[in-house]
Amino acid sequence: MKVDLNCDLGEAFGNYSFGGDGQIIPLITSANIACGFHAGDQSVMNKTVQLAKENKVGIGAHPGLPDLQGFGRRNMDFSTKEIYDIVVYQLGALNGFCQIHNVKINHVKPHGALYQMGARDKDIAKAIAQAVYDFDPEIIYIGLSNTFLITEAQRVGLTTASEVFADRRYEDDGQLVSRKESDALITDTNEAINQVVNMVKFQKVITKNNNTIEIQADTICVHGDGEHAFNFVSKIKERLMKEGVSISRLGG
Amino acid sequence: MKVDLNCDLGEAFGNYSFGGDGQIIPLITSANIACGFHAGDQSVMNKTVQLAKENKVGIGAHPGLPDLQGFGRRNMDFSTKEIYDIVVYQLGALNGFCQIHNVKINHVKPHGALYQMGARDKDIAKAIAQAVYDFDPEIIYIGLSNTFLITEAQRVGLTTASEVFADRRYEDDGQLVSRKESDALITDTNEAINQVVNMVKFQKVITKNNNTIEIQADTICVHGDGEHAFNFVSKIKERLMKEGVSISRLGG
Amino acid sequence: MKVDLNCDLGEAFGNYSFGGDGQIIPLITSANIACGFHAGDQSVMNKTVQLAKENKVGIGAHPGLPDLQGFGRRNMDFSTKEIYDIVVYQLGALNGFCQIHNVKINHVKPHGALYQMGARDKDIAKAIAQAVYDFDPEIIYIGLSNTFLITEAQRVGLTTASEVFADRRYEDDGQLVSRKESDALITDTNEAINQVVNMVKFQKVITKNNNTIEIQADTICVHGDGEHAFNFVSKIKERLMKEGVSISRLGG
Amino acid sequence: MKVDLNCDLGEAFGNYSFGGDGQIIPLITSANIACGFHAGDQSVMNKTVQLAKENKVGIGAHPGLPDLQGFGRRNMDFSTKEIYDIVVYQLGALNGFCQIHNVKINHVKPHGALYQMGARDKDIAKAIAQAVYDFDPEIIYIGLSNTFLITEAQRVGLTTASEVFADRRYEDDGQLVSRKESDALITDTNEAINQVVNMVKFQKVITKNNNTIEIQADTICVHGDGEHAFNFVSKIKERLMKEGVSISRLGG
Repeated sequence: MKVDLNCDLGEAFGNYSFGGDGQIIPLITSANIACGFHAGDQSVMNKTVQLAKENKVGIGAHPGLPDLQGFGRRNMDFSTKEIYDIVVYQLGALNGFCQIHNVKINHVKPHGALYQMGARDKDIAKAIAQAVYDFDPEIIYIGLSNTFLITEAQRVGLTTASEVFADRRYEDDGQLVSRKESDALITDTNEAINQVVNMVKFQKVITKNNNTIEIQADTICVHGDGEHAFNFVSKIKERLMKEGVSISRLGG
Repeated sequence: MKVDLNCDLGEAFGNYSFGGDGQIIPLITSANIACGFHAGDQSVMNKTVQLAKENKVGIGAHPGLPDLQGFGRRNMDFSTKEIYDIVVYQLGALNGFCQIHNVKINHVKPHGALYQMGARDKDIAKAIAQAVYDFDPEIIYIGLSNTFLITEAQRVGLTTASEVFADRRYEDDGQLVSRKESDALITDTNEAINQVVNMVKFQKVITKNNNTIEIQADTICVHGDGEHAFNFVSKIKERLMKEGVSISRLGG
Repeated sequence: MKVDLNCDLGEAFGNYSFGGDGQIIPLITSANIACGFHAGDQSVMNKTVQLAKENKVGIGAHPGLPDLQGFGRRNMDFSTKEIYDIVVYQLGALNGFCQIHNVKINHVKPHGALYQMGARDKDIAKAIAQAVYDFDPEIIYIGLSNTFLITEAQRVGLTTASEVFADRRYEDDGQLVSRKESDALITDTNEAINQVVNMVKFQKVITKNNNTIEIQADTICVHGDGEHAFNFVSKIKERLMKEGVSISRLGG
Repeated sequence: MKVDLNCDLGEAFGNYSFGGDGQIIPLITSANIACGFHAGDQSVMNKTVQLAKENKVGIGAHPGLPDLQGFGRRNMDFSTKEIYDIVVYQLGALNGFCQIHNVKINHVKPHGALYQMGARDKDIAKAIAQAVYDFDPEIIYIGLSNTFLITEAQRVGLTTASEVFADRRYEDDGQLVSRKESDALITDTNEAINQVVNMVKFQKVITKNNNTIEIQADTICVHGDGEHAFNFVSKIKERLMKEGVSISRLGG
């Protein structure tokens, strides 16, 4: 029994620092690296690919919408053709830095609004997945468990990794409770860790309505910004290992 | 005896069209495709790679400075480390579209201010060339004949193609007469065509001071914007063929 | 009986030209000048304010969403607070050029997706209108006739000008037929001109379902890109004058 | 005897925070607010103008080069016409937020590379100053003491405030020692404070070659990022007041 821990890295931009990449990276197994559209720039990308290589974590592209000021979190009305091109461009850009460091892109995970739009819209999900497949069919595709992100990626022929969240509550249909609702987040650390264990070991999660539904948990999304996030990841990792779950990178 | 004809393509952006790519492409052998920093965007790049593939011209990356408003023509004070990263990012991005179309980047030619800065500054020239080499040592490097662009690219191990201009006058040291001077351009079509023939067949050019210097002419820079440009390229091509020079793409 | 003719100007950007501002401006009475977010840049704005001043047309701000690549035509999920700030910034920027040329902003018209979003969403309409009012309550507000753009602007205390379109068909509720539908555009010139006359003289328009509804027509949106557009505006103007309608700028 | 303390504020951007504006603002008398080109965005500007108003500090525009990734610190080859337009645009944009908060722009200080370029290049200095004057001749102009920034601003008719630095060493000609040299910074707090007192009370500074030159000190540049900066400003302020120098905002 095993699971991957993925974290967004390389989100600095120019003079602006962001997160504690160097502190969190020893704890994780997969790094989602921003590609310059919603965050990151060419110098940050170069450094982050190097950091990921040195720490032997899986290198992932984290393509987002072209909206730096909004950090890629605002929905934008793109055609599926445009979505496809946006993803190819960013995969290519990150791959440039992989080539100079002699490493490969191991996975991809859409960012922010692109991720949310793809989870709910089949055509957008298909466009993202097709771009990844056409770019390199070997890349593992991370998407929200139980959504179009996973089903459409599988349909185009990609290997997928279903993602779960430790600190988010779930709806009965497997979607995340929207952040706009008051009970979206699990703030109690133990409750969050128990949810993770339950998802990873038993493929179950208890929804906000107290129902138990099935969920696939190949990778857990963790955060790297701040001391609290760092401690939270440490605890999740410790508990999972105690439960006999090995933490291992996707495709490893 | 042979020479390549290269032209900047894919310089549209979003709602803004630019140049007549479809009209000029049957006449040329190498396309320098903008990569989204000084011009071009992900959708333009996709279309332009496809157009180049269909027309069987050599596909080239045309990386520029990150200055869309200035079209990459304004010098900017970058460190050589930053120059390196800027080039890698853009090579990667263009390569993304090459991968989905199953083609390869055949050459690279720095754009605008990046080209001018590299021609005059050895360290910048080296940074550009190193980025290209580290990305893919098979890529042919187009640079201004007789400048650091060529010597530094050769030093890092790249195959180079020396570029000449039909309609620009030359200094005694082989540099182009600056556009800021009144005699920078050759406006007479026949004079320009004769200069080309002289450069390609005899590796000679007559400078603005009426001296004859040696020049290497592997590829000729032509333009694709407007009826005049189109006619000019047609005439150059016709004349070269009449002179027994075959027009053939770099590395072909 | 009078009506204003408004046209989008100043939509060039850097090296990219756009439209024929100099050709259309003698025909119109109000210029909507792009403010650098969806089109236009600081140099284009300076030139366009000067051009509008010389031609004695009303100077208008044409704020858009921050999406140059999409020309401000893609909906984006902004909060109303963000919408407010986006509008203030652009009004201020354009006003900078008005101050150096000793002219005033006479009107404002939201652009593209911002206009469409405001026409359909009351809160967005209110945010735009409040920004305009707080910036300068004397500015005349152009919005789509019969929509929230007009009602919310009136509610905050602005003077409004209801805009109609010559070449677009209308729904029974006064909205424009979406461009995604096949009958959105009126392609017959005479039909379009008759629609304009009907709207201006009788405050009536025949909808796509052949019903007659009321419509307020203070200003007509015309286009300035290309020979066809130019001829179309000339004909509308000629016909309106023949019908006894004077063409006069808003607030004039 | 009095002096102003000015500090760069509003340098956050979107999701990226920057500096401790709220902590430093009670200590200073003039705020230089970024205008969206090198830092800041419309929402940050709105908040920062409000913060400055509440704290009754002088509101200043801090226009920079359009280079967010480089934080406006890289020289760029602009024509003086372009420089002029860049300054007008940013003054206007900031003034938008001043209008909605019923305050006025009290001063302007060019940022980063724009400041450095203007200090050394007479034509650039003139272009910046002319833009400010044309926009509003009442605005006080902050520039590096003893440079073209001051002389050209005075020549166009602006009131100037000569700026000095506590922690930078000076050349014999009054220029700052370049940051590229090892002795550019004064790292000893007492030495820095003594330099300030010497400049403010006696209009003298000891250069890196141990010569004493004259210097005008109307305003002192301080920084607001981090605990060290905060303590340093507190100490400067305390010492100046002990020396009988009142801290008072420009034009106050």
